Amino acid sequence: SHPVFTDMPTTVFEVMSGLARQHDAINLGQGFPDAPGPEALRRLAAEAVLNGPNQYPPSRGVPALREAVVEHYRRLQQVNLSVDGVVVTSGATEAIAAALFAHVSPGDEVLIFEPAYDAYRPLIQRAGGVVRAVALTAPTWRLTEEAIEAAVTPATRMVLFNNPLNPAARMFDTGEIAALARVCVRHDLIAVSDEVWEHIVFDGRPHRSLLSASGMAERTIKIGSAGKMFGLTGWKVGFACGAPELITPVAKAHQFLTFTTAPNLQTAVAAGLGWGADWFRAQGDDLGRSRDRLGTALKAEGYAVTPSEGTYFLCVDLAASGLALPDEDFCRRIVTEFGVAAIPLSAFEATPITRTVARLCFAKSDAVLDQAAERLGRAR
Amino acid sequence: SHPVFTDMPTTVFEVMSGLARQHDAINLGQGFPDAPGPEALRRLAAEAVLNGPNQYPPSRGVPALREAVVEHYRRLQQVNLSVDGVVVTSGATEAIAAALFAHVSPGDEVLIFEPAYDAYRPLIQRAGGVVRAVALTAPTWRLTEEAIEAAVTPATRMVLFNNPLNPAARMFDTGEIAALARVCVRHDLIAVSDEVWEHIVFDGRPHRSLLSASGMAERTIKIGSAGKMFGLTGWKVGFACGAPELITPVAKAHQFLTFTTAPNLQTAVAAGLGWGADWFRAQGDDLGRSRDRLGTALKAEGYAVTPSEGTYFLCVDLAASGLALPDEDFCRRIVTEFGVAAIPLSAFEATPITRTVARLCFAKSDAVLDQAAERLGRAR
Ligand SMILES: CSCCC(=O)C(=O)O
Ligand SMILES: CSCCC(=O)C(=O)O
Repeated sequence: SHPVFTDMPTTVFEVMSGLARQHDAINLGQGFPDAPGPEALRRLAAEAVLNGPNQYPPSRGVPALREAVVEHYRRLQQVNLSVDGVVVTSGATEAIAAALFAHVSPGDEVLIFEPAYDAYRPLIQRAGGVVRAVALTAPTWRLTEEAIEAAVTPATRMVLFNNPLNPAARMFDTGEIAALARVCVRHDLIAVSDEVWEHIVFDGRPHRSLLSASGMAERTIKIGSAGKMFGLTGWKVGFACGAPELITPVAKAHQFLTFTTAPNLQTAVAAGLGWGADWFRAQGDDLGRSRDRLGTALKAEGYAVTPSEGTYFLCVDLAASGLALPDEDFCRRIVTEFGVAAIPLSAFEATPITRTVARLCFAKSDAVLDQAAERLGRAR
Repeated sequence: SHPVFTDMPTTVFEVMSGLARQHDAINLGQGFPDAPGPEALRRLAAEAVLNGPNQYPPSRGVPALREAVVEHYRRLQQVNLSVDGVVVTSGATEAIAAALFAHVSPGDEVLIFEPAYDAYRPLIQRAGGVVRAVALTAPTWRLTEEAIEAAVTPATRMVLFNNPLNPAARMFDTGEIAALARVCVRHDLIAVSDEVWEHIVFDGRPHRSLLSASGMAERTIKIGSAGKMFGLTGWKVGFACGAPELITPVAKAHQFLTFTTAPNLQTAVAAGLGWGADWFRAQGDDLGRSRDRLGTALKAEGYAVTPSEGTYFLCVDLAASGLALPDEDFCRRIVTEFGVAAIPLSAFEATPITRTVARLCFAKSDAVLDQAAERLGRAR
C-alpha cells in the first residue's frame, strides 16, 4: 500500500511555473505579484534579520504578531479574537494542514467546494478523512443550502471553505454564507475558512468572515495569509484564528509540523497589520484596475471573461470563447507555443466538470498584462 | 474519537521556555545559542529581504541552495547526492514530518530509539504508524544489533534514527551504525536519519552519515538543519536528502505542508554551506569548550555529568549526584526556585525509564554558564 502523498501529482502551480521558466513565458499561472512588495515591510524585516533575534520565537508566534492579528481583525472585520485564539504558521498552507491534522480523525468526512484549491484533497486524505465535494459551476459558482445539506452525512465533521474562492474568483454573498452557517450549526460541524484573499476584493464590496456569521464564532478556524495581504508571497507567514478551544489543537499540530516561523518576518508583518483600512482598500483597488485591464484586453481579443470579485485571478471560458479544446490542452499550448502560463480549472476538481475554463493571474504590471493579452490573442 | 494531536501535550521545549520567561530564569532548556549567529549570513539575508525576490521560490527550494547542499555534503562528508535528491523545508521538523507523511501508511511500524526527540512519536502516530521504541540506557546509551533486531516485525517499514542523539548527547560509532544498517538492509527498511547535529560534534571525532553506511544510500532520508549548522535556530531552513526515488514523495508531502520556505533565508544559507570545513570544525570546538566549562563547573558543585559527544547538550544524572527526586520535579524546582531552566529526559520517553536525568544546553556565553552552575549548586 502506497502512502497517500506518494501517488499525488506535483502541484499544478509548481508544474506550470516550471514550464513558464523553461519556455521563458509570462507567468500568469501561480498567484504572485510581480511588484516587489511594500518597501517599509521589507526594510523592517531586513533590520530584524540583521539585528536579531534570530533564535526560536515561541511556537505559537511572536507575541507582537499575535496581538496585531487580533487588533487587525477587530478593526477591519469587527471579528473578536483573543491572543489565545491565534497561532502563527509557516504560511496559510501550513495553517490549513495543522487545522486538518488537529481536527480530522480517520473516517471523518470533510466537505469541500469544487473547484477547490489543490492542497485540500490530499491533506484531508492524509489526515484520514474522506472528501465530499459540493460541485459549483461556472459562470455563477453559486452555493445553495440544498447542495451543502445534500452532501452532509452522519460522518461529516468539517467543512473546508474558501472565500473569496480560488480559482473561481467568486466572493460569496451574505446569503450564501448564512446558508453555510446554518448547515454547520445544524450538524455541529467545524468550519475551516480559508480567507487568504480577504483583502484582495473589488468593487467596494466588503469581505465578511465566516467567523462572524450566526453561530460560527465557536466553530470556525479562520485562515489568513500575510503573503497575500502584503503581496510578499515568499514570506510564508500565515495565521489560524478562532476560539481557543479550536486553536489549541491546531497549535499542537503546528508544533510538530514546523514548530515555529522566522521571527524577523513575523515582526515586520505585525507592523503591516497595523496599517489603516485605507491601505488595504487601495491595494484592492489597484488590483481591481489590473483585473479590468487584463479583462478588457482579453475581451478585445475575443475571449469570454468570467467575473472576478476577489483574488489575483480572472478566468476565461474557452467554450464561450469559441475554443473547442480542453483547458489542460489550452494551457499546455499557450505556455509552450505562445509564452503565457495559466492554470486549467480542471486541476482543481477530482472529476473535472469545469473542463474548459483557464485561470489567469493579473497581479502584474500593465505592460506585462498587455503583452500577455496580445500573445493570447494570437493563440486563438 | 479524538484526533491524535488533540490529546498531545504542548512540547516540553515550549513549556520550559515559557516557565523560563515567566521566572526570568537562565534558559538552558530549549536548544538555541545566545550568540547572534554569523554576521555574514545575517547581512546576506537582510540584503535579500530588502532587495528581493520575496515571492514564492520553487517548492523544492531555491536552486542555488539545493546545489549548495549537494556540494556541502560531498565536501564535508563524502556523501553523494544529486540536486533531485534534495528538498528544502521549513526547518528540520518539517523535513521529518514530510518524510513520515510521505512514507508511512496506516499500520506501518516505525522504530525509534528512546530517549527520542519529542516530535517523533506524535508525527508517526498522526501518519497512521505504530511506534516501536528501542530503549537506550544511561550512561552509555549503546545501540546493539540484537536490540534493534528484536524490535523488528513483518510490519516494520521504517527506522527513525537520530545521530548525534538528542537528548542523550551520544554520537553513535561506526560499529553501531553498521549494525543499524545491517538490520535495515536485512528487512528492507527505509531510514529517516535526523542528523541535524552533524556539525556540532566534539573531541575531533568526525560525524558519519547513516547514508554512507553499506547498503544505505538507496534507503536513507538524511535530515539536515541550517538553523543548527549556523546557530540561527529561528530561520527554520532544513533539508531532506537522499535517493530521488525516496525524496520525490517527500517533496510531494512538503508541497502540501508548507509549499516552500522564505527565499531570502535560503539564499543566505546557500552561501554559508560553501564555507570551509574549518569553519564548522571551529564552531564545534568552541561549543566543546562551552561543554567543558559547564561540565567542570557542575562537577565542582557536586553533579554527576554524563559525557557529551555532540549536540548543544550535556546531562546530569541526578541519582548519581545524590539527588533523590524525579527529573521532572527537579526541573520544575530549578526553574521556579533557582532561575535555571532544563529539560527532564523522561519527557523523551513514552514509558519513562530514565527518570533521573536532566538535560542542559551549553550553547551560551561563559558568564551565563558560570552563573547557571552557581545557581544549580545552590539547588542541591
Ligand atoms: C502555493 S503556490 C499557489 C499560490 C496560489 O494561491 C495560487 O496560485 O492559487
Ligand atoms: C524546536 S524547539 C527544540 C529545539 C531542540 O532541538 C531541543 O531543544 O532539543
